[in-house]
Amino acid sequence: MEQSKIIQVTESIFSENERVAKVLRQKFADSGVLVLNLVSSPGSGKTTILERTAADLKSELNMAVIEGDQQTSNDADRIARTGVAAVQINTMAGCHLDAPMVEKALESFDLDNLDVLFIENVGNLVCPAEFDLGEDFRVLALSVTEGEDKPIKYPVMFMSAQAILINKIDLVPILGFNMDECNDYIKRVNSQAKLFELSARSGEGMENWYQWLRQAVRTKKAGKK
Amino acid sequence: MEQSKIIQVTESIFSENERVAKVLRQKFADSGVLVLNLVSSPGSGKTTILERTAADLKSELNMAVIEGDQQTSNDADRIARTGVAAVQINTMAGCHLDAPMVEKALESFDLDNLDVLFIENVGNLVCPAEFDLGEDFRVLALSVTEGEDKPIKYPVMFMSAQAILINKIDLVPILGFNMDECNDYIKRVNSQAKLFELSARSGEGMENWYQWLRQAVRTKKAGKK
Repeated sequence: MEQSKIIQVTESIFSENERVAKVLRQKFADSGVLVLNLVSSPGSGKTTILERTAADLKSELNMAVIEGDQQTSNDADRIARTGVAAVQINTMAGCHLDAPMVEKALESFDLDNLDVLFIENVGNLVCPAEFDLGEDFRVLALSVTEGEDKPIKYPVMFMSAQAILINKIDLVPILGFNMDECNDYIKRVNSQAKLFELSARSGEGMENWYQWLRQAVRTKKAGKK
Repeated sequence: MEQSKIIQVTESIFSENERVAKVLRQKFADSGVLVLNLVSSPGSGKTTILERTAADLKSELNMAVIEGDQQTSNDADRIARTGVAAVQINTMAGCHLDAPMVEKALESFDLDNLDVLFIENVGNLVCPAEFDLGEDFRVLALSVTEGEDKPIKYPVMFMSAQAILINKIDLVPILGFNMDECNDYIKRVNSQAKLFELSARSGEGMENWYQWLRQAVRTKKAGKK
């Protein structure tokens, strides 16, 4: 009895999220803004990737960032220093962003004037997998410092991503990280995702990510009703 | 209405966990085994810390390990190779271990013959904070690769720990990690926790952790009814 009650309530949380995510997806389609949901473990470098992307592409793309963290506005402050607009959501005890939080944060932006909206989720390789934010693509950042086996240990999140950024590759020689093994593990759970090996610190490999991003922006704009 | 129903169900999940955690705590007290709940982000090095601890202390302490991951038995296999008994729990989509999972895993061990039971939680710096496993101490591992600011961005977990292992200090010079800043952030959210700076890879600083562990085992045994 208790079990079925829990399932019912869980379904109702998910269905409310799905309802709002659908509204968001329509809104993003209407304005032709590309929306990316960035997920990863804490400390994988999502914010550093966004800082560098913002600095390098702000002359050619209009970007904005929604930052999710339990507490602090550190990440939004870091993005704002690049000159790109950023809004911070604090989830307090919460372990993920949900669609209603994103809907609220959108009040800060004029979507029609944006090319790309990045949503940096709470650092958590588990729970954000279950919450659609109306995004076009889910982009997963994996730091080589986390070890090769994360894709098979946290397959739900890895299966849900359309692009995977293997970050901090400047540390590969120091760590003895086995990139082939990691790629094999990723392909075992998700053979479709586009893979990028890069370092947001050194800049190595960032250009491939930018090319993918530019192409995704063009495709999204072309599909605008 | 929906909201109050959710709160009720959440309370019932927590209260069932609390009930089982209390049973476990009594069981651990009766047998005098020290129980540590290890929490961290994915890839912070919990398993490597346990591997090295198992190898270095197995001649003086009887240890066992419960491993929690969404999928794979990689971690239990790694521990078993050191000669220490290990059992793997797979949570599948689940984001944390709970007390009933630990109760079930205990069937594999004779607690009366153990000095220390390590429970390595699912890699997640958020959700495991809410679930008491009947442990004596919660031990948080933070890798320096995750950045200095994690304590203030994920304060709920940092507040809940009695010991914090700052791991991978061999990478500090390469990363330019600011240890003083990190320590300040930890103290801001938790001034009571015992701090250890160590590298499970190089072995630096491990002896301080072992001394704390030996003392905790002695204290636990002395308190056995």
